[in-house]
Amino acid sequence: MDSDLIAKRKALLAPSYRLFYDDPVHPVRGEGAYLFGADGKRYLDAYNNVVPAGHCHPRIVEAVAKQTATLNTHTRYLHEGILDYAEALLATFPKPLGQVTFTCTGSEANDLAIRIARYVTGGTGIIVTENAYHGVTATVAEISPSLGPSMPLGPHVRTVPAPGEGVDFAAGVRAAIADLLRHGIKPALLVVDTIFSSDGVVADPPGFLAPAVAAMHEAGGLFLADEVQPGFGRTGAAMWGFMRHGVAPDLVSLGKPMGNGYPVAGLVARPEVIAEFGAKIRYFNTFGGNPVAMAAARATLAVIQDEKLMENAAATGAYLAAGLAAYGQLRGAGLFIGLELPGAALAARVVNGMRRRGVLISASGPGNNVLKIRPPLVFGRAEADLLLGALQESLADG
Amino acid sequence: MDSDLIAKRKALLAPSYRLFYDDPVHPVRGEGAYLFGADGKRYLDAYNNVVPAGHCHPRIVEAVAKQTATLNTHTRYLHEGILDYAEALLATFPKPLGQVTFTCTGSEANDLAIRIARYVTGGTGIIVTENAYHGVTATVAEISPSLGPSMPLGPHVRTVPAPGEGVDFAAGVRAAIADLLRHGIKPALLVVDTIFSSDGVVADPPGFLAPAVAAMHEAGGLFLADEVQPGFGRTGAAMWGFMRHGVAPDLVSLGKPMGNGYPVAGLVARPEVIAEFGAKIRYFNTFGGNPVAMAAARATLAVIQDEKLMENAAATGAYLAAGLAAYGQLRGAGLFIGLELPGAALAARVVNGMRRRGVLISASGPGNNVLKIRPPLVFGRAEADLLLGALQESLADG
Repeated sequence: MDSDLIAKRKALLAPSYRLFYDDPVHPVRGEGAYLFGADGKRYLDAYNNVVPAGHCHPRIVEAVAKQTATLNTHTRYLHEGILDYAEALLATFPKPLGQVTFTCTGSEANDLAIRIARYVTGGTGIIVTENAYHGVTATVAEISPSLGPSMPLGPHVRTVPAPGEGVDFAAGVRAAIADLLRHGIKPALLVVDTIFSSDGVVADPPGFLAPAVAAMHEAGGLFLADEVQPGFGRTGAAMWGFMRHGVAPDLVSLGKPMGNGYPVAGLVARPEVIAEFGAKIRYFNTFGGNPVAMAAARATLAVIQDEKLMENAAATGAYLAAGLAAYGQLRGAGLFIGLELPGAALAARVVNGMRRRGVLISASGPGNNVLKIRPPLVFGRAEADLLLGALQESLADG
Repeated sequence: MDSDLIAKRKALLAPSYRLFYDDPVHPVRGEGAYLFGADGKRYLDAYNNVVPAGHCHPRIVEAVAKQTATLNTHTRYLHEGILDYAEALLATFPKPLGQVTFTCTGSEANDLAIRIARYVTGGTGIIVTENAYHGVTATVAEISPSLGPSMPLGPHVRTVPAPGEGVDFAAGVRAAIADLLRHGIKPALLVVDTIFSSDGVVADPPGFLAPAVAAMHEAGGLFLADEVQPGFGRTGAAMWGFMRHGVAPDLVSLGKPMGNGYPVAGLVARPEVIAEFGAKIRYFNTFGGNPVAMAAARATLAVIQDEKLMENAAATGAYLAAGLAAYGQLRGAGLFIGLELPGAALAARVVNGMRRRGVLISASGPGNNVLKIRPPLVFGRAEADLLLGALQESLADG
């Protein structure tokens, strides 16, 4: 009984856990873009970006199983796996981005970026967008206003309006830099999720990031592109969200989709940015970059490339966007789509209505009124049609 | 060629990576307490605490492979796996410890403990031992003096001498509390690795922690037992290191051995400590507590219990300690043993000499002169004899 599971969760798990949907989903099996529930029902998964290759992709399952049975140690021994993957991964980045540190989570990657930026610049000031989310460690929670008012921002943190109609993003960043300096705080880092997921998904026009990054560089700070959400081809236009904007980050953080569900993440850097930090301070992440994590990540990247999932994100994304355009203002790129509805109540009703119809999405944005559609990258036209049908019905629930 | 791999590491990985041993080891397969190198040689692993059940334990490999092929989502859906494991795990803790949050790494668990302690107490002051190590996020690196002088401690952090001959540990904690208060800093948390690994391994006499914990509680702060090193039966005497001391932590962090190599960690708490934090602040760790992590952890705990690995840690640990006693001062409990040698140079020579003889250990402590022996818990008498032989020969190298 699901009610027994909910009672057990309340007893055994900390109260910080939350469930999706008024009527929570209880999946027992996953395959491609679908989850199968304990209720015998099939659910179309249009939300889980942790599995770009689809649930339980056989090639990735095989890679994890084989390496788990062979060897799983750590990065203080030599191993080909980490080097093979680092080489394949770094080949997808423009120079001079060229060295990688592996962590287990995107939070750890962003946290490490902040440590490096503060060490390199000697500053502490950090600039983020007004509804940003960058993770859950103490230091990244302090730069994540979307966690809500109970989680105070750090005194060295400034927020700027996310890009959008009538917003001059670079002017906001310049004003935040001036305000930091006026308080005697040296700017260290501008952090941007390059698809602005928690700000309600902002993708256009490509290029709007460039003058903001230039302003931060002029002030002596660094730029971190948080690619945990848009990375690994999700936008359909480029492997990394920052490439759509033609900017050159100093640091790039990677996470969720990297191992198709296996806990693996990382931080890519310009070598000159991390040379001194790395020489003076060891960074050992017990599980980070272990042979199984690397096997999972290598197989996931290979599937994304071999099965042309970025190209599919572009094609299915365009098809889906065309079908969605009738229902509200659209934002996004590829298979990361935000659909703005008139209010949070309607968005919540639609999210729960679609869940009843077996289609899983969520809502986001500062007003919680933007439907967030972010499926596995194997999503095809048949899946898009299913989603559009369920959306139309759910909007009619009224 | 290993030299090619080393060159590739320098090119592709951040310079914060380090390798063990003058002549690094290049394992390609693991089984039980042994690693097998690309050089065709067998290595006795007397150092990796991440695999308590031994390398590639078939029952755990099977659990990971099966769940990876079936379903891997997250904690915002219902799933039996997380509840079954939480129940089995929490049954090993004394009441009132009774709720758990899952993370991916011990660093994340300690970092979350600090967030909770600061939220609950309204204070920021943290007390740790002089050569403590608690992880790599920005916030836990600030309470990890063993990372060296390039990593500054936080201004709200105080260090106290680790317990040992002639040290009144509780008096140190009381003095640190007084010093925090004198600076207007409210004490939030006393953090102790209950086997004092990086302080050179300190286990005796059991009970010495109690008055220090009482002093922190009197000052309104909380006590975090960091069980990443001593936990899951390693000390042979109890499942958790704090139990040897008869103290009642408010928070307990778990890590390394939890999933026999799969990235999984967690924080166990007294429910009343986390009630308000959890109600007001969501904590979502994308990979934390996912079905595969839980399958790995459940199988690992089952192996530890079914194969009586804690009992083996006690028995083999005693046998090994008896054989080691001739060579220097011994510290530790169960299969966590520190052997103090006259200096760092000798310790380094012995560590590298044993590596040449196919036995893997390391050195630790503030003076780097304590041999750290910390094998998989499946280590038996035959393995202990191999280690003792290699140690005797390496000490004779001169």
